[in-house]
Amino acid sequence: DNSMDLIIRNGFVRGADGEFARKDIAIINDRIDTIADEGHINESAKREVDAKGGFVIPGLVNTHTHLGMTLLRGYADDLPLFEWLSEHIWPIESKITPEHMYAGAMLGCLEMIKSGTTAFADMYIHEDKVAQAVSDSGMRANLAYGMIDLGDKERADSELAEGKRFVAKWQGGADGRIKTMYGPHAPNTCSREFLIRVKEQAQKDNAMIHIHILETEAELNEMKEKFGMCSINMLDEAGFFGEDGKDGANGTNGTNIIAAHCIWLSDGDIKILQERGVNISHNPTSNMKLASGIAPVVKMLDFGCNVSLGTDGCASNNNLDMFGEIKLAAILHKMDTNNPSALPAKTVLDMATINGAKALGIDAGVLAPGKLADIIIVDGNKPHMVPHHNITSNLVYSATGSDVMTTIVNGQVLMENYKVLVMDENSIIEQAQNAAKEMVEAVNKDV
Amino acid sequence: DNSMDLIIRNGFVRGADGEFARKDIAIINDRIDTIADEGHINESAKREVDAKGGFVIPGLVNTHTHLGMTLLRGYADDLPLFEWLSEHIWPIESKITPEHMYAGAMLGCLEMIKSGTTAFADMYIHEDKVAQAVSDSGMRANLAYGMIDLGDKERADSELAEGKRFVAKWQGGADGRIKTMYGPHAPNTCSREFLIRVKEQAQKDNAMIHIHILETEAELNEMKEKFGMCSINMLDEAGFFGEDGKDGANGTNGTNIIAAHCIWLSDGDIKILQERGVNISHNPTSNMKLASGIAPVVKMLDFGCNVSLGTDGCASNNNLDMFGEIKLAAILHKMDTNNPSALPAKTVLDMATINGAKALGIDAGVLAPGKLADIIIVDGNKPHMVPHHNITSNLVYSATGSDVMTTIVNGQVLMENYKVLVMDENSIIEQAQNAAKEMVEAVNKDV
Repeated sequence: DNSMDLIIRNGFVRGADGEFARKDIAIINDRIDTIADEGHINESAKREVDAKGGFVIPGLVNTHTHLGMTLLRGYADDLPLFEWLSEHIWPIESKITPEHMYAGAMLGCLEMIKSGTTAFADMYIHEDKVAQAVSDSGMRANLAYGMIDLGDKERADSELAEGKRFVAKWQGGADGRIKTMYGPHAPNTCSREFLIRVKEQAQKDNAMIHIHILETEAELNEMKEKFGMCSINMLDEAGFFGEDGKDGANGTNGTNIIAAHCIWLSDGDIKILQERGVNISHNPTSNMKLASGIAPVVKMLDFGCNVSLGTDGCASNNNLDMFGEIKLAAILHKMDTNNPSALPAKTVLDMATINGAKALGIDAGVLAPGKLADIIIVDGNKPHMVPHHNITSNLVYSATGSDVMTTIVNGQVLMENYKVLVMDENSIIEQAQNAAKEMVEAVNKDV
Repeated sequence: DNSMDLIIRNGFVRGADGEFARKDIAIINDRIDTIADEGHINESAKREVDAKGGFVIPGLVNTHTHLGMTLLRGYADDLPLFEWLSEHIWPIESKITPEHMYAGAMLGCLEMIKSGTTAFADMYIHEDKVAQAVSDSGMRANLAYGMIDLGDKERADSELAEGKRFVAKWQGGADGRIKTMYGPHAPNTCSREFLIRVKEQAQKDNAMIHIHILETEAELNEMKEKFGMCSINMLDEAGFFGEDGKDGANGTNGTNIIAAHCIWLSDGDIKILQERGVNISHNPTSNMKLASGIAPVVKMLDFGCNVSLGTDGCASNNNLDMFGEIKLAAILHKMDTNNPSALPAKTVLDMATINGAKALGIDAGVLAPGKLADIIIVDGNKPHMVPHHNITSNLVYSATGSDVMTTIVNGQVLMENYKVLVMDENSIIEQAQNAAKEMVEAVNKDV
């Protein structure tokens, strides 16, 4: 009798303490049931996965992206921010149809499955199609329709209505793999009044909030001019981060908020985010590529903030490879603090797993009995992954997403030994190519 | 009759102008014979390679590494520089035998073949074994025995003797794929007198020079204290860079020198390197990981210096993936100069190809008739490599070394469609694992 649904054998398993050991993992339904020393799980399972001596770790959590932007990968690069947005990104975004979005979101899910991301937080347009792709691909995600009111009351009403519709439709969708969030874009593209309405609505709906904060120095200057204070102070004063000390269960606390970027912060701002429990998503590649600045991540961690990692959208990265963010975060903050011991490998791997899961409010990020079975297996037998002096170091400094052999989400094997099982790769790639071509043709007609 | 040795069909080929077009490439012996529009090469060939719609570009050139350090990958990380070197790297380096070095060098060659590097510049100990691995693997390399005299006359004599022996033995080795260099470690680990002797010897032997310059602020301070000037000024005053205006053919000009790192440079220093034609190897990953600083690369390029890219050794990276350096260089200098247009994709791809080949003094780095057939084909059909809005952008910002399908050096196919043809991968990996284990056991005995 197969009392287990799935058993993973023959791997080095990352424990809750970050140490690796030869262990086997048994899964029932969507949860880890047992982790035991190698050869000590005697039950049989409906299915066994051979880790082939690879490294078994919690699935990576990408806490900030815009999935549909896979279709804009390489469309416009190496440009000043405003020219990039206004002359290239916005015009083509206006040509994206729901069908394109589904093609782009499926491409993004495929890329994430192949590179070891098991859960992500998204904010964009045509978000229904992103939800559909999450549902169809087996991924886990926290999703938001991205809202911008620019101080226009009518626009605020319609944006919030669309946000509410999305939350109502998808909360708990895809067998619970989808959680919903409200996605007010940023403190300088949304009015203070709108942000307060969003906060109240999120609280009412028990939904999370996903927002960009202080990605650019321009936002800092704009806020200071308009409010006499920075975005963090304005939001805190408006009650956006909820009351300190609340447990966040009803959405009144900052623990239900994911704040992306958080670059232009003072020590006082960091302290506020820590006290309110706001989750920070650090996006080093995008921040460097757009020359946005360097988030004070070492300080954030010292203050006790929950800092996780995100790739941002493919237009500013240009991929969804979380291993890229892991390595870059580790070396960027060594450089920034002039300290080669800063952000050691284990800390950064925790950021991409434990901290990410905490940010999304999902019971994952650690391999332990009772936790959701979101698990990846990384190849330990490629030339650039040997010798095995230190597995954590190899994962952080040597690996890329292409080394992920097997990806499991919610107990379901989405990719095994490099073969994606839940979709036809070639057809996804072809549909994405076609969608991108149609978008370019549509935008070129306007010129 | 097969008048061609090799024809590559069905790819997008990077032209000398950096633009991609559907072309076919015919190769005779070690050189490119013809590049023509797709379907317009009518000759037949002994062998055809199908690019499968991928991106055909010049092989990447890694202008600074220490190949044997693959065996130290992950051995010690996240440590202050001096503790890292004195308590970890130097003790275990002293346990490396020639047999270990061969195992490590073969692992490094395998990693480079798989990630699209076709030529590299190396400096380390047991360099005969690195040369042997280059010879056995089919790679191309400029090799140096790394010399340090620390002002000790006897040590200077023996180091130079070993350097001379190595140059005499390997110059033009492996059917001309090996060029030799003298490898004085750095201006603060070698005496001024020794550096002058090395320069004279290199000139006599028509060999190149490979040296670290101003990797750390500590070197800058040390040199100023000792000589009242920085390393660049000291070396220039000593005639190390040769006379300005010479063509470099006899080794008297800086064009025969590869200077790695070059971080702590004034504008005047950059001007000297440009005037002398010294080749600069920029190593962004290592510089960030060791918190060494940021080389003024944008300024160097503006001044007209030849700046190429290097991975440095695996102990400070921790891989040999040149695509990692390409992306990192592109985004690091955008951030450093606060300019998202700095170091655009084409410039960085040129640094890794044209500029690298120039630094090594090899007739490669561009796909054109008459050039050496050092060519790689990058997969254009992976999820993270579509859509194809801009191939250069996809190569620079989206690719990793794992996307390289095919690697050709000197007209010989070393890897085709992901299968390495010139060595047994599993046996190389096993030998490297065993060598690393023996080294660790030997060093632990000393404790």
